[in-house]
Amino acid sequence: MEEKNFRLEISYDGTRYYGWEHQPGKPTIQGKLEQVLYHMCYDLDGLETSVSDDDIDLPVEVIGAGRTDAGVHAREMTASVKLTTDFSCEEIRDYMNRYLPDDIAVVRVREASPRFHARYNAKGKTYQYTIFDGPVHPVFNRRYYTAVPENLDEAAMRKAAEYLVGEHDFRSFCGNSRFKKSSVRTIESLTVRRSKGYIYITVKGNGFLQNMVRIIAGTLIEVGQHKRPVESMEQLLLVKDRKQAGYTAPAKGLCLLKVHY
Amino acid sequence: MEEKNFRLEISYDGTRYYGWEHQPGKPTIQGKLEQVLYHMCYDLDGLETSVSDDDIDLPVEVIGAGRTDAGVHAREMTASVKLTTDFSCEEIRDYMNRYLPDDIAVVRVREASPRFHARYNAKGKTYQYTIFDGPVHPVFNRRYYTAVPENLDEAAMRKAAEYLVGEHDFRSFCGNSRFKKSSVRTIESLTVRRSKGYIYITVKGNGFLQNMVRIIAGTLIEVGQHKRPVESMEQLLLVKDRKQAGYTAPAKGLCLLKVHY
Repeated sequence: MEEKNFRLEISYDGTRYYGWEHQPGKPTIQGKLEQVLYHMCYDLDGLETSVSDDDIDLPVEVIGAGRTDAGVHAREMTASVKLTTDFSCEEIRDYMNRYLPDDIAVVRVREASPRFHARYNAKGKTYQYTIFDGPVHPVFNRRYYTAVPENLDEAAMRKAAEYLVGEHDFRSFCGNSRFKKSSVRTIESLTVRRSKGYIYITVKGNGFLQNMVRIIAGTLIEVGQHKRPVESMEQLLLVKDRKQAGYTAPAKGLCLLKVHY
Repeated sequence: MEEKNFRLEISYDGTRYYGWEHQPGKPTIQGKLEQVLYHMCYDLDGLETSVSDDDIDLPVEVIGAGRTDAGVHAREMTASVKLTTDFSCEEIRDYMNRYLPDDIAVVRVREASPRFHARYNAKGKTYQYTIFDGPVHPVFNRRYYTAVPENLDEAAMRKAAEYLVGEHDFRSFCGNSRFKKSSVRTIESLTVRRSKGYIYITVKGNGFLQNMVRIIAGTLIEVGQHKRPVESMEQLLLVKDRKQAGYTAPAKGLCLLKVHY
């Protein structure tokens, strides 16, 4: 058997996980995926017993397009992984779905060129942040939105969002105060849409700083609450100061919709 | 203050509960609602501490239109309750939503005539049973559907469903073998609809026997799997024998959509 490179599309409810990236002793998306693939390739008989959540030195490395934070969801995260297996793409998908917990699903598996790398080759990502501002919180998707107590002015939020579109230094929206590299990123589109009591902030960009979408969401929520003027967004980009932006909106409202290549 | 009669519309995710009806020592929907209303009317200061899940002798009785089983959901259950309170309908709704767990929500509170009784006055109910028959199980609403491993023939299911519409003795679809009363019920409509990998069985009727919708769903699934001929439905109604119908489909796929008055 020769080693092949595979491309995976993965959907997950991040509620129970400490984010994408594996960490010793904690359940993570990457950890779960590697655990199942390790058994598929090396230890077909040992599943359920021999590898624990914190075993991060497996000979299988699943490379995600990005690292979602604890509690953040993904409708379609892309990952790449090199495997030595006779399984077809569909067999890999079905094997993984059989052994993964029901809050992680492998939607598609394709063979990729040997040089495909889910992170290095990603051209951009689309995220969605979901807010509910009505009086009665819907129960069925309660893990996937953030509730705010008052009605938001989504027209103001939409105007504020326009200031962020384009290439800017997003230092004010960076959650990592010790981040040394360039914080210049390009937001290709940033829309604010209301539907049935929900407000959806959808942002497409070439790259995102730590907590950037959640800080944008928190800042736009404050604009929607009239706690922060629409025009202040311009200044906010210029000051390059995290403390002047809004709060980091909760992880549960954030979902990675798609990775672009 | 005089006693008034209120009508409540309630939405809940039944996953964590032992059904609607209160039971000693177990979390139930009715129990949670009565606990919160008791505090609202009698003991504003004591919430969180003095009443436990198994205290079923409270001076507040929330009467549901029906009793959903453990694990069954409701988009809109109707209930009636007599309360002595100065709170407005909106204040009652907001108070309840503030103290209820996030998998139960009071969608609407209205004052009703003193004689309104959620169970006796109900003319019928609409239930929906949700099945997923695709290869990859969607993660985000995984608590609200039942997955079947093979593609179902929904045209066959639809034809089989037609046999059940109208007034029939549904004894074969009754989960309680010791049920002594009449098992004649009228199904006004029973539709089978496919959308995006899901199959929705929606049934409206004047009353339902124990597990009736879940046994109908299980039987239609077997028809969709070609394990049971479409035409056998006619005979199944005539034999009045639970053992000849299909399995009781899991509770998680069932949702009470609406109560009709």
